[in-house]
Amino acid sequence: MRRMTARPANGHQARVLRLLRDAGPQSRAVLGDQVELSRSKLAVEVDRLLETGLVVPDGLAASRGGRPSHNVRLAPSLRFLGVDIGATSVDVAVTNAELEVLGHRAARYDVREGPVAVFEQVLAMAADLREAGAAESFDGAGIGVPGPVRFPDGVPVAPPIMPGWDGFPVREAMSQELGCPVLVDNDVNLMALGEQHAGVARSVRDFLFVKIGTGIGCGIVVGGQVYRGVTGSAGDIGHIQVVPGGLSCACGNHGCLEAYFGGSALSRDAAATAAAGGSAALADRLAAAGTLTSADVAAAAAAGDGAALDLIRQGGNRTGQVIAGLVSFFNPGLVVIGGGLTGLGHTLLASIRSQVYGQSLPLATGNLPIVLSELGPTAGVVGATRLISDHVFSPV
Amino acid sequence: MRRMTARPANGHQARVLRLLRDAGPQSRAVLGDQVELSRSKLAVEVDRLLETGLVVPDGLAASRGGRPSHNVRLAPSLRFLGVDIGATSVDVAVTNAELEVLGHRAARYDVREGPVAVFEQVLAMAADLREAGAAESFDGAGIGVPGPVRFPDGVPVAPPIMPGWDGFPVREAMSQELGCPVLVDNDVNLMALGEQHAGVARSVRDFLFVKIGTGIGCGIVVGGQVYRGVTGSAGDIGHIQVVPGGLSCACGNHGCLEAYFGGSALSRDAAATAAAGGSAALADRLAAAGTLTSADVAAAAAAGDGAALDLIRQGGNRTGQVIAGLVSFFNPGLVVIGGGLTGLGHTLLASIRSQVYGQSLPLATGNLPIVLSELGPTAGVVGATRLISDHVFSPV
Repeated sequence: MRRMTARPANGHQARVLRLLRDAGPQSRAVLGDQVELSRSKLAVEVDRLLETGLVVPDGLAASRGGRPSHNVRLAPSLRFLGVDIGATSVDVAVTNAELEVLGHRAARYDVREGPVAVFEQVLAMAADLREAGAAESFDGAGIGVPGPVRFPDGVPVAPPIMPGWDGFPVREAMSQELGCPVLVDNDVNLMALGEQHAGVARSVRDFLFVKIGTGIGCGIVVGGQVYRGVTGSAGDIGHIQVVPGGLSCACGNHGCLEAYFGGSALSRDAAATAAAGGSAALADRLAAAGTLTSADVAAAAAAGDGAALDLIRQGGNRTGQVIAGLVSFFNPGLVVIGGGLTGLGHTLLASIRSQVYGQSLPLATGNLPIVLSELGPTAGVVGATRLISDHVFSPV
Repeated sequence: MRRMTARPANGHQARVLRLLRDAGPQSRAVLGDQVELSRSKLAVEVDRLLETGLVVPDGLAASRGGRPSHNVRLAPSLRFLGVDIGATSVDVAVTNAELEVLGHRAARYDVREGPVAVFEQVLAMAADLREAGAAESFDGAGIGVPGPVRFPDGVPVAPPIMPGWDGFPVREAMSQELGCPVLVDNDVNLMALGEQHAGVARSVRDFLFVKIGTGIGCGIVVGGQVYRGVTGSAGDIGHIQVVPGGLSCACGNHGCLEAYFGGSALSRDAAATAAAGGSAALADRLAAAGTLTSADVAAAAAAGDGAALDLIRQGGNRTGQVIAGLVSFFNPGLVVIGGGLTGLGHTLLASIRSQVYGQSLPLATGNLPIVLSELGPTAGVVGATRLISDHVFSPV
């Protein structure tokens, strides 16, 4: 069912819509102050937005003296869909126009099943959310995938861990399926956007979001905008070399960060440690489950297992070594650590911090917070709805 | 002698001034097309610029059919001063409003003499250029220094190789001395701007300029604008760690890139090679001069000396290792290599290229040129005049 969502006619209307998204219902008087339009000019723009149905009246505002001002808000029926496809997981959420999550579904699913199977899964989860009453239809959808994306046309390009996805027209296909505008981006970029919209990076204009999941990637925000690089591969830090001539990596090179840390490397090293008799706790878990994940390492570490703690510290040191270089280069105002392996907690964070604070110059680290993601598993879906709402709330 | 240079009254006028700077004299008709103003509105703005004296008539344009169009150009009397202070050199140049270099002076001078002595030298060189007829006075000056700068107030901050400069009010002091607006920036940022204005990076919006001089630094251009980082230290890649627990660096850390390459490291290693009997050519030069510089290494390498070639290759490999990481992270459209050590030529460039093309993912390197600076020793001064002209040609 296609819904024809109206679009703002000009930049003033776009700013009004984004203000209402970010700050909730507002009086016309307050809006006028923030958009820097005269009362009469603002009234014209707001009236036009009321005609489109994007904005609706919301009662009288508290008096600031003088004539009473009317509140307006974004239409309560507006719905955005946020989709976060990870290497081994799919998250789907529905938000209202203020990007409040009204429903969220998460599933384990392997991205290597290919785009057709993954999007059947996504559409089923979206249908489930619709049936649960979270939405009737969607006014826009943002989709994150775990690989580089040619952003303007929303097509994955040469994604190393996504066989079958190279060149798949995700934006076009999903726009047709969902009957609404769709934008597609790298998953880490969307996590950075989510953290900027509703998490720990609010009001920070230049920051890095480092995702440590199955692989390791980085979202780069410059001047409040996601920086994607000239071919959409910016932030691909998992294949920065940390040991010249080191371990083989899935990318075909040697010594990449991902060959040493991330979910895949940690599973491998934990199993090797268990097999070599280095950790009774890990050996017990391996015997019980036949495989080890980062959750097993986290549990063993929490129980005081020295070998598990060492694995986390070594991985944090390698990751911190790379982040230290990025901090020297980029001089960010904040570094956010997110992704599945943040379950490893403060041991991981402490190792990263000690590398960065020890290696980068004091001028770059003096006021630099390095913190865990605030939104955690919803950073990606919130960022996805932020991305598409920026698009829908832009002049055509 | 203070000259009160007029400033544009609005954004339209600013765009006209920058167009005339970048493209030279233009007909009103062509300007109208590019500024996207109607003929009548453009005429108003151009007439106001003519009144200020920033713009002057320049005869009739070639006919495009219809009424003849008049050419206008920037006032031929406008003069910008570009100053590039390196670790061991000072360059001063005068340009016209189109940023054509009318006069250029270069001197060896040690930045460690401190700001007062260095600026006496700069002012003497500027006076010399005035006496030679390049300028009567200046409408603006841009100044580059070899360390981090708090850009808004033009003050060097904790610059590692500039004792006595920390907190010195360069912008304010030089503005008073020169009687014109002054902006101060890190020298590498200005080289990047110069290369963007008149060199190999024209029309490239996202690129890196890597300067290999006494030290090693990087200018970062994002969306056509210099990115300086939150405390002005972005691009400080000389202190990225390349060997964990490696050689001591002047910054107090271990294993930094600058501990292995750059003018200082190369002089040290060349002298050690000569002393150890590894190179007759370097030993002869050391005996003759008492010291070795990168020029000696370049000369020995050009004469086929194997040890000199090895020193260059090793340094290029270390530098390339760092640049490979930056390319994975930043996914630029171009990497420019500049600074004094580009005299080492294609042996250096080849080593850097082989590291980057070998280590970074194909998606980031597929269409990535890695080239030598086109402007060479004038990149910094041209960039300095570009910086200040952007400021002078902005609405107040």
